[in-house]
Amino acid sequence: MTIWISEQEAAQRLLEADNILLLAHQYPDGDTLGSNFALYQALKTLGKTVRVACEDVVPEKYDYMDATADMEDFEPDYICALDVADAKLLGPGMQATYGERVDLCIDHHSTNTGYATESCVDASCAACAMIILRIIRLLGVELTPAIAQCIYTGIATDSGCFKYSNADALAHRMAAECMDLGIPYEMINRVNFDMKSRARIELERLALDGMEFYHDGRVAVMTISNEMVARSGAKENDMEGLPPIPRQIEGVWVGITLRQKADGSYKISARTGTHADASAICVLLGGGGHNRAAGCAFDGSVEEAKAAVLKAVEQAVPRIVTG
Amino acid sequence: MTIWISEQEAAQRLLEADNILLLAHQYPDGDTLGSNFALYQALKTLGKTVRVACEDVVPEKYDYMDATADMEDFEPDYICALDVADAKLLGPGMQATYGERVDLCIDHHSTNTGYATESCVDASCAACAMIILRIIRLLGVELTPAIAQCIYTGIATDSGCFKYSNADALAHRMAAECMDLGIPYEMINRVNFDMKSRARIELERLALDGMEFYHDGRVAVMTISNEMVARSGAKENDMEGLPPIPRQIEGVWVGITLRQKADGSYKISARTGTHADASAICVLLGGGGHNRAAGCAFDGSVEEAKAAVLKAVEQAVPRIVTG
Repeated sequence: MTIWISEQEAAQRLLEADNILLLAHQYPDGDTLGSNFALYQALKTLGKTVRVACEDVVPEKYDYMDATADMEDFEPDYICALDVADAKLLGPGMQATYGERVDLCIDHHSTNTGYATESCVDASCAACAMIILRIIRLLGVELTPAIAQCIYTGIATDSGCFKYSNADALAHRMAAECMDLGIPYEMINRVNFDMKSRARIELERLALDGMEFYHDGRVAVMTISNEMVARSGAKENDMEGLPPIPRQIEGVWVGITLRQKADGSYKISARTGTHADASAICVLLGGGGHNRAAGCAFDGSVEEAKAAVLKAVEQAVPRIVTG
Repeated sequence: MTIWISEQEAAQRLLEADNILLLAHQYPDGDTLGSNFALYQALKTLGKTVRVACEDVVPEKYDYMDATADMEDFEPDYICALDVADAKLLGPGMQATYGERVDLCIDHHSTNTGYATESCVDASCAACAMIILRIIRLLGVELTPAIAQCIYTGIATDSGCFKYSNADALAHRMAAECMDLGIPYEMINRVNFDMKSRARIELERLALDGMEFYHDGRVAVMTISNEMVARSGAKENDMEGLPPIPRQIEGVWVGITLRQKADGSYKISARTGTHADASAICVLLGGGGHNRAAGCAFDGSVEEAKAAVLKAVEQAVPRIVTG
């Protein structure tokens, strides 16, 4: 079992370490990348040898904070995973190489499995980047615009641009602190929340066409098949931000997105409001996440996936059947 | 001409006045309503006789901050318009009755026409509600959750839930201050940004189908005809938040929305990024607004409206033709 440590202790470990490998999760998003690139820069300022690694290529839209180009290769002495709730979320390659060797995990998921030797988890934070901001302060490193834009990206992306329930006063204040340094937040918001390719718009249209409703419209299920992706011309970086769509429909308590993966299996995402706990649903299918946003994997046909997730919804949210 | 006054002077006028009529603009949005209902409550606390008036019925989704039910009728001695840049934006009825009698206008539009006897305008504020928050402080009224949720609504709705360029550090800090009072921001964000009726989704699909692109995709024009509205079954409260859609498409500098009104004429909305000034475009057609979001009216056929707005775009943003 892991040892749960404070942010002060986490900062102390990082100050004592060198040749540090930072790890992002597979299918990297703004928070895991923002956390990694922010801490990377802070540790470089302290003269450390540092590198960020990720199973997947960093999507182009995050180029503005990507510092991987300058990174040197080295054999790490200290391995730190950021925003990675479970070793298997590192992705198969990274898990095989580093999954058993993570010295420290810094995370904001209440479902963190404690796979690291030591874990610093604060599930009250909207984004892992908020914990990283505090740890950077504890490291004694001054915030720069380049660090601040990574932190801002993490907070903004994990809170749906301050729309979700996790976007509390602290999230707003930390964002404001980052903005005080003069970060290009307009560009950051545009690339993350306000820009869709024509292929993405076509994919959304196809997905909306096939939306299915259950339990008097309280459950909405949207399926994204490989065939739909091919037909729309959507690329991997057109695929983000689809899971919130079903729950945006009036009257929906639980929005489910079934996304087919290359191997034909499904990635299931659940989004909920105050009436249901997304994490409770996905835990029943071997996954996890947050109260309002959670996920799991499913190997089977789309019909089997739908049946399984509906059963899990009914079990986790009995009131959804009667209204 | 109007006399431009400070927030301190505006607060002083309100302290001295009684039997105060507050005015919202036609087609009321979260900022004009949030500003009105916040100031209404603050002035009530001071023992004033106050009323809020608006040409249109307050959309149902704003019920959570609506205090109109309790309002008494009286002949106003002091008339104050909030978030109303031009007397004609009061709507024909309100303009006829009060347009020439507005004692004070509190606003954040740089295009404010100065139609009131005195005007307190700060165009650096993302929302009129931010100015109202400061004026409420100057009135010596303590912020309550009921007032704070109105202010938060104004800031959040006029900044696209903190997504637009006007969502600066001050907007975030003022939102955080409101949230400190324990407002139901999750519900507010849900009804304003995250909830679409099925009819609305159908209308978006129809509108996306008919989207037209000009100048190598740098201009996108979306038309919402009365026929499309009827076909989708969309109601008036399904119509908000359509203008940002065209500019969300990758590569678009200027997003134009032509919305047909009941009388067949068009309301034109322009949305731009850093490459173009929306206000400069709409001013050419007799309208106005902000740098990134502006509007105007057009009486004519849809073809004439498109031709006129494209000509205005080319004139205001010459570089859009060559790229």
